[in-house]
Amino acid sequence: MTKSENKINLKSLDRNAPIGVFDSGVGGLTVVREIIRQIPNEKIIYFGDTARVPYGNKSRETVIRFSQQIMRFLNTFDVKTIVVACNTASAYALDTLERDSNIPVIGVVKPGARLAAQVTKNGRIGVIATEATIGSRIYSQYIQELNQEVTIYGKACPLFVPLVEEGLLEDPVTDEIARRYLTELIDIDIDTLILGCTHYPLIRSTLGRIMGPGVTLVNPAYETARELKSMLAGMNLLSGESPKLGENKYQFFVSDKAEKFVVFANSIIKYGILSAKTIHIETY
Amino acid sequence: MTKSENKINLKSLDRNAPIGVFDSGVGGLTVVREIIRQIPNEKIIYFGDTARVPYGNKSRETVIRFSQQIMRFLNTFDVKTIVVACNTASAYALDTLERDSNIPVIGVVKPGARLAAQVTKNGRIGVIATEATIGSRIYSQYIQELNQEVTIYGKACPLFVPLVEEGLLEDPVTDEIARRYLTELIDIDIDTLILGCTHYPLIRSTLGRIMGPGVTLVNPAYETARELKSMLAGMNLLSGESPKLGENKYQFFVSDKAEKFVVFANSIIKYGILSAKTIHIETY
Repeated sequence: MTKSENKINLKSLDRNAPIGVFDSGVGGLTVVREIIRQIPNEKIIYFGDTARVPYGNKSRETVIRFSQQIMRFLNTFDVKTIVVACNTASAYALDTLERDSNIPVIGVVKPGARLAAQVTKNGRIGVIATEATIGSRIYSQYIQELNQEVTIYGKACPLFVPLVEEGLLEDPVTDEIARRYLTELIDIDIDTLILGCTHYPLIRSTLGRIMGPGVTLVNPAYETARELKSMLAGMNLLSGESPKLGENKYQFFVSDKAEKFVVFANSIIKYGILSAKTIHIETY
Repeated sequence: MTKSENKINLKSLDRNAPIGVFDSGVGGLTVVREIIRQIPNEKIIYFGDTARVPYGNKSRETVIRFSQQIMRFLNTFDVKTIVVACNTASAYALDTLERDSNIPVIGVVKPGARLAAQVTKNGRIGVIATEATIGSRIYSQYIQELNQEVTIYGKACPLFVPLVEEGLLEDPVTDEIARRYLTELIDIDIDTLILGCTHYPLIRSTLGRIMGPGVTLVNPAYETARELKSMLAGMNLLSGESPKLGENKYQFFVSDKAEKFVVFANSIIKYGILSAKTIHIETY
């Protein structure tokens, strides 16, 4: 259920319209991958803000302004719903986007929080994310709405995104940095760790090795796709068609460096991303 | 000498006008520090593009567009000259800015290249910089215009900026990453290393230790301030006043996170930066 549902006229929405998805850059493709797995008949319009990436060290006001521009861009495609596939934008901008939108908007934070609240046994949950997401305390807020007995420990990990973007997925330096960030979470005996940034699933094996087998790693991407599917089904908005690849089924847009994006995207999603278009997002 | 001098009407410029300086974020403050040391009577308007930082992994077209917006902003202060205190913007956008401007524009690349060409003895110069600056091959181009006998070896060091921004100035991880980046430059026996990104002087001691005493480190900031002073003197544009601190002598603007900027700026420049204002640079 999203706040915007009250003003949404479901009859005005086309069930065969595409789903809009956005992220500060490439990380949101891990969410797209899950959406494609779980609801393969849906069309997707993806936008990655590669000219202004990263968002994780920027202010609330700036992330909101950037997110509003992107929502206006996605709405030019008459999308039936928008997925904020970026934890920082979900943390800072989701409320505003929901308020401004007349279609459903869902983020990655609530689904991740819900799953973590379900799987913890000792009631001690860790969250690793960008400086902005941790500073917003949004994971704590959502989890405690679900279960006041749970304690949440947040830790900002600002070097993970550049390390992932440099491809140091399995590397002694990433190990060393991860140990520094995670030591305090190990010391306080969490049993569940939320990967609160879409880049972090790409170093999941490093994180799992350091945390040890007693800690469950929660990737919000899976749960977000599940919630999206369930929401669309509940609104009778699941696609009634089976569009084929090539029929504009998946369209990718970025604000910079389309070629580099395509290479990265093809390594994450194995469904033939042939091209991405560059647009000037600040004009929206 | 800048390309734009032909169309500059020197008589129309006010020698007591401020100097405009810009960077993608905080790195350009190392250039401001040198300008203040060498020409302390000048007023300065600084802009740091903290909403869109970093520039070093973005495309030429995007860096040019961002730089043009910033030039338009600085021109609202009737600045007498513009210093592009960012290697990536100097590499990608200086030609365009010079072409579009009717006041002198100087970058940090040419002064750094000139100094390196002077100090090398064995004719083997290394350049470390962002992916964008190295990819542009602009240091090679300038140095070889000065001396065709010199060989230039470029190495992109994309993790240095995030490591510096995280404050890991003296740290085993920074050591390890620096060793990886610099090994090939040591192996080919360079005797001069250009710090081709304004963040790098902040890890100068680490770089110096790894390169060893036989390698001269060139920081373009000093040479840029020297060239600026000499250019202004040649045009009879050095300030004729002695403005005091507080009389709008140094004004700082950013596109995001003014408070964080002020803390960082005060650690680099010890001249009482009391505040910075946030503006929406994309509207210029």
